Amino acid sequence: MRFVDIIEKKRDGLELTTEEIRYFIKEYTEDRIPDYQVSALLMAIYFQGLNEREIADLTKAMVESGDQIDLSAIHGIKVDKHSTGGVGDTTTLVLGPLVAALDVPIAKMSGRGLGHTGGTIDKLESIAGFHVELTNEEFIRLVNDNKLAVVGQSGNLTPADKKLYALRDVTATVNSIPLIASSIMSKKIAAGADCIVLDVKTGAGAFMKSIEDARKLAEAMVTIGKNVGRNTIAVISDMSQPLGFAIGNALEVQEAIDTLNGDGPEDLTELCLTLGSQMVFLANKADSIEEARELLKDAIQSGKALEKLKAFIASQGGDPSVVDQPEKLPKAKYQIELLAKEAGWIESMVADEIGTAAMHLGAGRETKESIIDLSVGIVLIKKIGDQVKQGEPILVIHANSEDVEDVKELLYHTIKISPQPVAAPKLIHEIINK
Amino acid sequence: MRFVDIIEKKRDGLELTTEEIRYFIKEYTEDRIPDYQVSALLMAIYFQGLNEREIADLTKAMVESGDQIDLSAIHGIKVDKHSTGGVGDTTTLVLGPLVAALDVPIAKMSGRGLGHTGGTIDKLESIAGFHVELTNEEFIRLVNDNKLAVVGQSGNLTPADKKLYALRDVTATVNSIPLIASSIMSKKIAAGADCIVLDVKTGAGAFMKSIEDARKLAEAMVTIGKNVGRNTIAVISDMSQPLGFAIGNALEVQEAIDTLNGDGPEDLTELCLTLGSQMVFLANKADSIEEARELLKDAIQSGKALEKLKAFIASQGGDPSVVDQPEKLPKAKYQIELLAKEAGWIESMVADEIGTAAMHLGAGRETKESIIDLSVGIVLIKKIGDQVKQGEPILVIHANSEDVEDVKELLYHTIKISPQPVAAPKLIHEIINK
Repeated sequence: MRFVDIIEKKRDGLELTTEEIRYFIKEYTEDRIPDYQVSALLMAIYFQGLNEREIADLTKAMVESGDQIDLSAIHGIKVDKHSTGGVGDTTTLVLGPLVAALDVPIAKMSGRGLGHTGGTIDKLESIAGFHVELTNEEFIRLVNDNKLAVVGQSGNLTPADKKLYALRDVTATVNSIPLIASSIMSKKIAAGADCIVLDVKTGAGAFMKSIEDARKLAEAMVTIGKNVGRNTIAVISDMSQPLGFAIGNALEVQEAIDTLNGDGPEDLTELCLTLGSQMVFLANKADSIEEARELLKDAIQSGKALEKLKAFIASQGGDPSVVDQPEKLPKAKYQIELLAKEAGWIESMVADEIGTAAMHLGAGRETKESIIDLSVGIVLIKKIGDQVKQGEPILVIHANSEDVEDVKELLYHTIKISPQPVAAPKLIHEIINK
Repeated sequence: MRFVDIIEKKRDGLELTTEEIRYFIKEYTEDRIPDYQVSALLMAIYFQGLNEREIADLTKAMVESGDQIDLSAIHGIKVDKHSTGGVGDTTTLVLGPLVAALDVPIAKMSGRGLGHTGGTIDKLESIAGFHVELTNEEFIRLVNDNKLAVVGQSGNLTPADKKLYALRDVTATVNSIPLIASSIMSKKIAAGADCIVLDVKTGAGAFMKSIEDARKLAEAMVTIGKNVGRNTIAVISDMSQPLGFAIGNALEVQEAIDTLNGDGPEDLTELCLTLGSQMVFLANKADSIEEARELLKDAIQSGKALEKLKAFIASQGGDPSVVDQPEKLPKAKYQIELLAKEAGWIESMVADEIGTAAMHLGAGRETKESIIDLSVGIVLIKKIGDQVKQGEPILVIHANSEDVEDVKELLYHTIKISPQPVAAPKLIHEIINK
């Protein structure tokens, strides 16, 4: 097999065979195909696409390129959740305890990564004593005992995807739906869950700006799930503005506690109930989505969800009293209000630009070496569609430096106020379930 | 400037600026942009194309990436000819003396290269004593004195093109008209001629299979010429079968002598008169193409063209008596006829497959290290449209080994005989002159 012939086939819009795709991924992972040939293939895929069968083959080949986590020792149907990336997205912190409270086993492998705020692990480390250094045996025992545990990423999962992603990043081939779908799904499949619930973000602040592209990506991923035997459902949700009010690590932990207590922001609560009911249903813990939703609401009202959070924190070495005394979380020195310069209705606050402002405060990592300040961030008061008077606070900046002029400038730049009333964006667009 | 942004622009179908194209070629030539980014750009160009201005900028940048030959010491308008590659294409050997006989200065830089037969230099070296090792001063003096000299390629011409070509070859990005056009034209422009006559081949045995593609390539190259101030004309000619009868080095020298003597194959003679009259007209040695054609015919009939060939051979150390005594050329040991297996009309003899058969005999180089046998090759007797009886010879194989069964098999495979009469292909399709 000559790799140049594979490039030429795809360039000419022909279908690659299973064997050709396996050859590509295996040889590339083992450094026997040069980057310059692979980047030409990636650009040909950008233009010619991949069909359903090719995408499934590519995903499987990437899964098989490295280690695969074996969760078979965990009782019950394991459900994983993945979000395509948002700002102030506290859903994982809420959904873990909430869904586990209904006896759905959640074995979460998480990372730190780059971004506007830290990863799930960074956020959880706002809680004194909390750690994710678990052996494989401890991890499985905790999930079996408590139905919820979070562990740091280990092992050599999908090395082909890592190599391809790094190459795509520098060759303008990131933005290809078949490549994005197979990249996400390969990681989820290698991580071992039986079922996958995807939260595909759309809107000005998301990677998929249009609902059409978000739908294409969601459909591609659900189809991969079907073709590799992992039941997969996708929810398409809004990310034209940050989800909830909090953007920052400790601030989001606080917001997750509030939400599990029934006092969370309306949009965050609604999205958690939507995603959570899909998870509970896939895990066979309810006969319908509606029943699953009622069970989740009960878990919040009865305090079961909050109890699960406490047990989870304690099981991984953290201080569970933080749940009842959130003042124990790291707190920034200064709370600085951003005041509306004019009266009207909030028209836009682009999610990723608000996220960038939070990163400038120190909430996220720009490079792998950045050190996160867990206490800082932004708490919104107004969101799109809300009326605001001149001089009224739109949000509060939590900072450890009094000089936040540059951050304020970023925020004023992205927050637009309209003289006419503006409708709040729709939160849940579609649920894709083949 | 970030190269990934340039890739993205072209991927999205946008126009690259002059500055971006110059940056690309300069930085790539100096190894400051990695191959894997350039191959992604090349594939994006394959899909999105380049406009007239971008092609001219790319060509100029490649010309400026290396040395440029200065032919200003040669008197008169220097005209160069280039063929996009054919089989049995003896035009250069004929056109040099023929056009020089009308006082058009021909300063030919030529190579050996890979292919079905040797390059022009290999062919000329069939003549005892002939050599192309000339200093720059000798080369210019010979052209000023005799109007014709051939020198081996020297200097570092268009290194960017060499690097890009090697990359295109392994990334399925050869077959892009803007890239082919700029590659050919950059080499011709760097070689210093004032005017360029292009012979763009089309048909089953050519790189451009269809007349439409050949026309696009011809137009792209003529437009480059216009945009960089080098008067350029393109002739689109047939290469569905080999040109003339001879395929081989000494065999083609013999055929060139015959043609300059007025006894050459009809198609080779016609193409040489067509290309030659364009060259003579561009060089201002005639007031019209028709007048140029008459002057060329006169040069053949009067013996002036053959005298020019003799003077040229002698001036570069060769034995000019070979012109009158062609038996002095290297001759293969065996002449083996290929007999028609059935009666009918020759329907096809794909040029490059006949060329491959000649290469198997030893007439051309498969790799840079191959040693050419100047004596071997193929001489056609029948061509497309000719009637043939069963058992009648179609061609003669000139070989130095009696066992030519594999070559015969290749030839029988490509030569198809029809029971119905077949029309001979049209030789000259179009002349493109903006």
